[in-house]
Amino acid sequence: MREEELIQRLASRLKGSHSLVIEGIGDDAAVWEWDEKYLGLLSVDTLHEHWDFDRVYHAPQYIGYKAAASAISDICAMNGEPLFLVVSLGVPSYVSPDYLEKLYEGLRKVEEKYNVGVIGGDVSSANALWLNVGVVGRVEKEKITYRRGASVNELVCVTGDLGGAYAGLKILQREKAVFLQHPEMQPDVAEFTYIISRQLKPEPRCDIVARLREIAVMPTSMIDLSDGLAAGLHALAKASKVGFHIYLDRLPFHAQTQQVAELFHMPLTAFLLYGGEEYELLFTAPLSAYETLRRETQIHVIGYATEGLEVILEDPEGNVMKVERLGWDSLQGRQGG
Amino acid sequence: MREEELIQRLASRLKGSHSLVIEGIGDDAAVWEWDEKYLGLLSVDTLHEHWDFDRVYHAPQYIGYKAAASAISDICAMNGEPLFLVVSLGVPSYVSPDYLEKLYEGLRKVEEKYNVGVIGGDVSSANALWLNVGVVGRVEKEKITYRRGASVNELVCVTGDLGGAYAGLKILQREKAVFLQHPEMQPDVAEFTYIISRQLKPEPRCDIVARLREIAVMPTSMIDLSDGLAAGLHALAKASKVGFHIYLDRLPFHAQTQQVAELFHMPLTAFLLYGGEEYELLFTAPLSAYETLRRETQIHVIGYATEGLEVILEDPEGNVMKVERLGWDSLQGRQGG
Repeated sequence: MREEELIQRLASRLKGSHSLVIEGIGDDAAVWEWDEKYLGLLSVDTLHEHWDFDRVYHAPQYIGYKAAASAISDICAMNGEPLFLVVSLGVPSYVSPDYLEKLYEGLRKVEEKYNVGVIGGDVSSANALWLNVGVVGRVEKEKITYRRGASVNELVCVTGDLGGAYAGLKILQREKAVFLQHPEMQPDVAEFTYIISRQLKPEPRCDIVARLREIAVMPTSMIDLSDGLAAGLHALAKASKVGFHIYLDRLPFHAQTQQVAELFHMPLTAFLLYGGEEYELLFTAPLSAYETLRRETQIHVIGYATEGLEVILEDPEGNVMKVERLGWDSLQGRQGG
Repeated sequence: MREEELIQRLASRLKGSHSLVIEGIGDDAAVWEWDEKYLGLLSVDTLHEHWDFDRVYHAPQYIGYKAAASAISDICAMNGEPLFLVVSLGVPSYVSPDYLEKLYEGLRKVEEKYNVGVIGGDVSSANALWLNVGVVGRVEKEKITYRRGASVNELVCVTGDLGGAYAGLKILQREKAVFLQHPEMQPDVAEFTYIISRQLKPEPRCDIVARLREIAVMPTSMIDLSDGLAAGLHALAKASKVGFHIYLDRLPFHAQTQQVAELFHMPLTAFLLYGGEEYELLFTAPLSAYETLRRETQIHVIGYATEGLEVILEDPEGNVMKVERLGWDSLQGRQGG
C-alpha cells in the first residue's frame, strides 16, 4: 500500500476537525483560524535513517538541516511564512551525544537562515535514528494557497531546477559502493558538487514566496516537489479538478543532472519527472502574469492547465505522452542499509 | 546521559527563539503570542515500541489513545486547552494497515473525549513502531501557568492517585512472563483492572484545568506527572527556586497499587514517588485556597513550598527524608523486547 493511500485510509478513521480548523489532512499543511489577519499553518515531516538518509554520506549537520528544511517547505507551499519548529529525535544506542550536537548545528543553521526558532522537542530511545520536525507558520488570509485553486488555462510554473537531488543521490550511492569495495580510494565528486548539495542541503523556497509578493503575482494553487514533479502535477490536478499540458523542453535542469542521467544510462526525463526531495515549488498563476513571470530567473513557466484530469507531456517534436501518477517512492527505495 | 541533560545540551546549540515566542524549550509546552487574549501552546510527545509500550499487552487502540493523551497532558500542565494534533507514525514492515487502523480508533476516541482534532500527520517506514504526537493548544494570558511560579509557603497539590500506572505495568509484565512460559494459562488480572487501565488508557486532566477555573483557584506553578512525583517536585523546585515539604500520609493511592507493592515486595513509597506515566497534575496554589481545595475529591494537598531547593518527605512518625531527584526512567527500563 502506498503512503498516500495508507494516510487516506487512516484519516478516514478520524474526526479530523475542530471548530478553529479550516483545512485538515490533505494539503501540504493544516490551516486554522489564527486571528482576523492571519491563518495558522501546521505541518510535520520525518526523516528516517535507511529510508530518508544514509549516515555514510549524510553528515549529521546535513541531516538536521534537511529535516527542518523539508518541514519548512510545506509552509512555503501554502504561500506562508514559517515561524517555529519542534524537533523530536529517535536516538539509537549507536549514536553519540556529540553526533546529535552536530545534527543540532544543522538545525541552528536553518534557524538563522530562515528566521525560525526551534522551541520544543522530545528525545526517545529508538532502534534507528529518526528526526521528526513539526512546524508552525502563518499566512495572511488573502494569500493562502491551496492545492485546489488551479483553473483551466492558467500557467503552470516550477522554481529552480529539477532532478538534481535524485542525481546527487545516485552519485553518493555510487561513491558508497566504491568505498565499500575499495576503502583506500578517494571519492571523486568534484564535478558533481551542485547536485550533491541539492541532495544533502536542500533549501525550501521561502525566497520564492517573498518574490511572488514583490512582483504581485498571486499563485492560484501550489505544492512543493518533495515527491517529484509528476506527483506534484497529479496532486494539483486531482485537488483542482484540472489537467496539465507540460512542455518537456521547458523543464529546467542543471547540466550535472544531465551528466548523471547519461552516466547511468537513464532517461533525463525520469530525473525531471520523478526525482523527489526537491523542495522546489510547483504552482499555477493567472495567464495575465505571463510577462511578469518570464522575467524571473528562478521561475519557469512549463505549461498550462487544461480540462480533464490528465497530465500530458509534449516533447519538442510535438509528440505527446501521458505522465503516470508515480511518486518519488517508486523511483527511490531505501537510501541505505 | 539522562534525557533531560541531553535535551539541555542539545538545546544549548540552538537559537531557540523567535519574535513571537514567549517561552521555548524547558516547560511542559512552548508558549507563543497568539493574539490579544490568548497565548498559543505547542508540545510534542513520542511513544516508542520496546521503550514506551509492548505490543504484547498494549492493544493498538490503547497505544493511539495513550500517545495523544500524553501530548494533551502537556497542554493541561500549562493550564491550557488542547485544540489540535498532528500524528506522525513510524511503521515497521511487521505492522499491518489493519493494526494501524485500530491505533487510529484510539486517536478518534481522544478526539471525541477531549474535543480536539487530528489535522495532519506523516507516515514513515521504520524499524520499530513509534508514534509522535504534536499538539497545539491555547490559554488565556492571565491563566498561563509555568513551572517557575511557586512561592514559599504555598500549597502543593496532586490530582487523582499516584503510582497506579507503574503498578499496572508490573502486573502486565508479570502476565506476559507467565504467558511466555505457559501459553495455555489464562491471564488473571480481574483484581487489578483499575491500575491496568491507569497504564493502558491514561487520561490527561483537562477536567482539573476546567475545575480550577470553576472554583476560582489559580495555580501558581504546574507540571504533569509523566515522569513521576519526585521528578515533578524537583522540576517545580528548580524552576521556582523553592523547596517542598511533603507529607507521606497525604499522598493519594489506590488500594490496588498497595496490593501490587506488597505482591512484589517493594515499598509503596517507590510507586508513589517514582512511578511515571501518570498524567496527573502537580501544582502549587496560594495558602488562601486551602479551604476550597480540601473540598475537592480529585485534588489532594500534599504539603507546602519551603525555602531552599530540597524536597523533604515526612512520614506519619515525623521522620523526614530527602527525596532524590530521580525520574521515571531510573525505575523503568524498557517495557518489552
